Amino acid sequence: MRAVIFADGRVTIGDRGDPVPSGGEILVQVAAAGLNGADRLQRRGHYPPPPGTDPDVPGLEMAGTVAAVGPGVRRFRLGDRVMGLLAGGGQAELALIHERVAMPVPDGVGWEAAGGFPETFTTAHDALCTQAGLAPGERLLVHGAAGGVGTAAVQVGGLLGARVSATVRREAARPAVAALGATVLAPGDDWVSAGPFDVILELVGAPNLEGDVRALATGGRIVVIGIGAGATAPVNLGDLMGRRGVIRGSTLRARPLEEKALAARGVETALLPALESGRLSVPVEEVVPLAEAARAYERFEAGGKVGKVVLAVQTAG
Amino acid sequence: MRAVIFADGRVTIGDRGDPVPSGGEILVQVAAAGLNGADRLQRRGHYPPPPGTDPDVPGLEMAGTVAAVGPGVRRFRLGDRVMGLLAGGGQAELALIHERVAMPVPDGVGWEAAGGFPETFTTAHDALCTQAGLAPGERLLVHGAAGGVGTAAVQVGGLLGARVSATVRREAARPAVAALGATVLAPGDDWVSAGPFDVILELVGAPNLEGDVRALATGGRIVVIGIGAGATAPVNLGDLMGRRGVIRGSTLRARPLEEKALAARGVETALLPALESGRLSVPVEEVVPLAEAARAYERFEAGGKVGKVVLAVQTAG
Repeated sequence: MRAVIFADGRVTIGDRGDPVPSGGEILVQVAAAGLNGADRLQRRGHYPPPPGTDPDVPGLEMAGTVAAVGPGVRRFRLGDRVMGLLAGGGQAELALIHERVAMPVPDGVGWEAAGGFPETFTTAHDALCTQAGLAPGERLLVHGAAGGVGTAAVQVGGLLGARVSATVRREAARPAVAALGATVLAPGDDWVSAGPFDVILELVGAPNLEGDVRALATGGRIVVIGIGAGATAPVNLGDLMGRRGVIRGSTLRARPLEEKALAARGVETALLPALESGRLSVPVEEVVPLAEAARAYERFEAGGKVGKVVLAVQTAG
Repeated sequence: MRAVIFADGRVTIGDRGDPVPSGGEILVQVAAAGLNGADRLQRRGHYPPPPGTDPDVPGLEMAGTVAAVGPGVRRFRLGDRVMGLLAGGGQAELALIHERVAMPVPDGVGWEAAGGFPETFTTAHDALCTQAGLAPGERLLVHGAAGGVGTAAVQVGGLLGARVSATVRREAARPAVAALGATVLAPGDDWVSAGPFDVILELVGAPNLEGDVRALATGGRIVVIGIGAGATAPVNLGDLMGRRGVIRGSTLRARPLEEKALAARGVETALLPALESGRLSVPVEEVVPLAEAARAYERFEAGGKVGKVVLAVQTAG
């Protein structure tokens, strides 16, 4: 099979042996695969995938058709449309996924949306629902709302019944994020005084942390899942105690299979009906053929986009 | 009634009108009342009590006999032995407490132990059980374990089935804390490498925070309830994300009545049987008569003690 391959930091297309499904696994003929921040980190050697995953083939999510099943598979059959979260290897013509982590692609949802759905929406749902316990009526602030996880989080927050505010780094991104249901502050606005917030989803990192604590409501929760702008920041523990606040760090990728399966079940229950009905949408900035993966990474790394960059995979044979 | 009164930072004894119980409240003839860190902060004007509480009469806990009941009181009767957590005003001959926050004093438990029990043990139980979700078999580290909350937390951790480690600031305190069931590290020991820990109870503050994050196990929780050694410290959010860790700030005092009542119910269920059987003990460093309250505060502020300083209150009339 052909696959995106990282070679000394360059993005190339190469050949790999076709993977073979083990017990509980399904082999997917990939139709589309989204790019994510972790791919970029992995390319630079900063975020190695878990043991057992080819460190040179990126791809944390994909959608496609079941091409083969391993022993004991019960949830899916040959030809089913599936999508899901991977530890790596999704940006290839064939990918393995455990059936417990895979989800059905709802009728009417196209490959490009499906290929860009699992990582961002599972991350957003896990962070807001499972990690932060976001409840209906609560006030949610999403920092860095224009990216893949941000646009998913704004929508998931609204679906969970929260009142959603958002910050973006570029003024140009405001209308698109507002159209997803958020009150979007202008870049440079004093978001601390726009609070208090019950939940703050931190996708930017250290520069926001001190203000995040001051912007928390009593019993509020900060969930940090992105630190692109910096990792280390001072925290005033007195402020945190006074608000009985929580700072939680989270990442999906390193979790064991059973936790990823739980996260997928949560997404199936809470989000797939809304994806099918069109209430949730996957903002796709650009679709790039697999053969032009290097260009997709350039587009992804250039920033200034709203939503996903997705690779369209057309099998050669 | 006579009461401890803060006058411009001095500790004096003065007269106050006898309080009268409102609906749901009981009037307690106080037998013993413990000193706590918040009293010390209040004396210096740093930690004002919630609205509705006399800012000059300290005392967050007391034990005594029910002397009168307000309308609608159902849980207690005249003459019952009770103890409980107050927003203030416990260091006096008479004190008001809502019946939902009061707890019975188990048979066989003396006044001095009862008067020093509620604040530290409720704080420790709330922090470890409700805030941190400490589970049997988990590894708990208590920082600053020689004080009132620390000695309670070491015991409560053991009662909840945790494997308890502790740090103390003075070598001399090690045997007493070890006798409560903890593995006590020597002052200056590298406690980070003694980890990882599932739960870290932070009673010291900022100087420990960076190490606390590095000492966390995957899914670990830091609960900060004391910051005597400093409030502001850097946090590496990447370390926190990698461990899927939590930093939670908490304080009991500012909570609404219903949450304090819930905390009291938790203590009744989980701790009172063990207090009655003698499995839990209230380490009391010194008992001082109410009339010598200034000396009690001197002893309390001098540090270097293991366990509580408790005022013994003998009603004049």
